[in-house]
Amino acid sequence: MKSRITELFGIELPIIAGGMVWCSGWRLAAAVSEAGGLGLIGAGSMTPDVLREHIVKGKAATQKPFGVNVPLMKPDAAQLMEVIAQEQVPVVFTSAGSPKKWTGWLHERGIKVAHVVASSTFARKCEEAGVDAVVAEGFEAGGHNGREETTTLCLIPAVRKATTLPLIAAGGIATGDAILAMRVLGAEGVQMGTRFALTVESSASEAFKLRCLSLAEGDTKLLLRKLSPTRLVRGGFFDAIEQAENNGATEQQLLDIIGTGASRRGIFEGDLDNGELEIGQVASLLNGRAQQTVEEVFAELVAEYAEAKQKVAE
Amino acid sequence: MKSRITELFGIELPIIAGGMVWCSGWRLAAAVSEAGGLGLIGAGSMTPDVLREHIVKGKAATQKPFGVNVPLMKPDAAQLMEVIAQEQVPVVFTSAGSPKKWTGWLHERGIKVAHVVASSTFARKCEEAGVDAVVAEGFEAGGHNGREETTTLCLIPAVRKATTLPLIAAGGIATGDAILAMRVLGAEGVQMGTRFALTVESSASEAFKLRCLSLAEGDTKLLLRKLSPTRLVRGGFFDAIEQAENNGATEQQLLDIIGTGASRRGIFEGDLDNGELEIGQVASLLNGRAQQTVEEVFAELVAEYAEAKQKVAE
Repeated sequence: MKSRITELFGIELPIIAGGMVWCSGWRLAAAVSEAGGLGLIGAGSMTPDVLREHIVKGKAATQKPFGVNVPLMKPDAAQLMEVIAQEQVPVVFTSAGSPKKWTGWLHERGIKVAHVVASSTFARKCEEAGVDAVVAEGFEAGGHNGREETTTLCLIPAVRKATTLPLIAAGGIATGDAILAMRVLGAEGVQMGTRFALTVESSASEAFKLRCLSLAEGDTKLLLRKLSPTRLVRGGFFDAIEQAENNGATEQQLLDIIGTGASRRGIFEGDLDNGELEIGQVASLLNGRAQQTVEEVFAELVAEYAEAKQKVAE
Repeated sequence: MKSRITELFGIELPIIAGGMVWCSGWRLAAAVSEAGGLGLIGAGSMTPDVLREHIVKGKAATQKPFGVNVPLMKPDAAQLMEVIAQEQVPVVFTSAGSPKKWTGWLHERGIKVAHVVASSTFARKCEEAGVDAVVAEGFEAGGHNGREETTTLCLIPAVRKATTLPLIAAGGIATGDAILAMRVLGAEGVQMGTRFALTVESSASEAFKLRCLSLAEGDTKLLLRKLSPTRLVRGGFFDAIEQAENNGATEQQLLDIIGTGASRRGIFEGDLDNGELEIGQVASLLNGRAQQTVEEVFAELVAEYAEAKQKVAE
C-alpha cells in the first residue's frame, strides 16, 4: 500500500482516521497511529485547553506521528492552531474554510497540511495554496458535506484530473476492498471516519456506537441543505428537521430546531432521541457487527486489501 | 473481463447500456451489442407499436443479442411484454416494480431476466423471484432513483453480501477505471447510462447531448423526493421544482409543475428551458469532451480497464 501519502506522513499504511467531533480523542488517534496509519484528533469539538490535553496524552501513548483536524470556521481556530504549533504536532488537516488561510503559517512551523474538499474546484484551490495533500470527500460521508452532493465514485476521478497533489479518498470507505477500489480510481490513500468512530477507542458514547452498528440502508440522509448540508442518522432530531424541511422551513426555523450542543448530546452523551447523530452512509454495511479495536480493524483492512488485489490480478 | 454476466447473455464484454427513455432506440442498442456489450432498447418512452419497430430494426442491424428495458409501473407493460415475446427478444431488464410479476412468464418463453434495484432488500427479493441477474444502481444514476439514496460505492458491497446472483453495478460508471473498481467491490459487470446517452447513436437531441457534455460538478441533483426521487439537470424545469420544494410544495403542486410530456420535451426535443433533463452525476466527468461513437467508447473503456488493471498489479 506504499504511496506518496505514506511517504509524506512517514507512516506504514495510507489509512487515515478522520478527525471527528466527539469521537476522535487522543485514544483513537494514538491507536490508529500505533497500528500503522495516521490518527487525527478532532479539534472540532474541543476548546484549545482540551485540545492541548489530548495532544499531550496522545504523545505519551505513541511515539508515532499523529495529527489534528481543525474546521476553519470554528471561532477559536487561531487559538487551536497556536496550541498545535506549541505542542509541535507534525500534521494538520484543515476543513470547512479556505486552504489559503493557514497553509503558509503551518508550513513556516514545519507542519504538514492536508485540506478536505468536496469538489475539483476546491482541489485546484488547494494546489494554489500549496497544501501537501488533498482529501476528497464524497456525499456518502457523515456530518458536514459538500453542496455539490458528488459521490466518492464520481469525485475521486474528477479531483485526480484536477490536481497532481497526493490524493486521499474519503466517504463510503470501510473495507479493504473499498481501499483498493479507491486506488484504482487514482487515490493514494484513504480517510475513514465511520469505521473508526465505532471502535472501542472512539470517545463516542456506547449508545451512539450501538445505534450506528444497527442501521439499515437509508437510515442516514443528507439534510440541512439550506444551512450546511449534513448527513444525519434517523431519530427524533432527524425527524424534526426532515419534517420542517418538507414543510418549507426557513434557515432561522432550522437553526431554532438545532439549538445548541446537539452533536455533543447525541454522539458524546448518547441521547438518541434529542441529540444530533452524525455517521457515514457506509455504517449500514457494518450492521450487526460487534465493536472492534483499532488493531482488529487494521488487521481486517490489510487482509481484505491483499485478497482483493490478488482476485483482481487473476 | 469475462464473468458470469458475459456467459449469461452470450456477450464478449460485461458492459450493458442502460435502456434510457428517449435515448435508447434500436441504433444505440444495436451499436452496443455490435461492439461486444449488451444493448438495451428503452421501452419506457415507447408504445408497443414503436417498441416493435425498434426491435425489428435492431435485429436487422445486428446478429448479436440485445435486450429491452421495461419499467413495470408503465400502464402498458403487459402489451410491451407481449411484443417482446412475439419478437423473441432474448433478454429483458425490468425495473420500477416487483421482480415477481414477470420473471416466471418471461422464463417460460426462454427470455433471460435482470431486475434493477437500489437496495439489498430488493436484491434479496430478486433472488426469491428467480431472476437471472441483478442490477444494483446507486444514487449517482440519472433519472429515477432509490429512496435510500445509497451511493454505488456503498450499495455494491451491500448487494454482494445479500445475494449470490450475478451482479451488475450501475450509477456513476463512465470509465474503464470505474469498471475495474466495481469488479474490486464484487460486481461482475456494469450498466452504463450517461456515457451511452451522449454518444452519436443515442436518439437524444443534439441540444440535450451538448448540454450534458458541459456540466460542472453539482449541475445534477436528486429532486422530487415526495413523488419518485429523480436526478435532474439544472435548467428552467429543475429550478421550478427546486424552488417549489424549498417552499414545501405538496405532491399535487409538484405534479402540476411536471405536467405531461416533460422528458420528451427535454431529452428528445431539446427544450432545455421547459423540458425535463435526466442524466447521471458522472456527466460532469465528461465535461468538454466531444460526442463519440459507441465503438470509440468501447475502445476507450477496454484500454482504460487494461491499464488500470496493470497499474493495480504493480
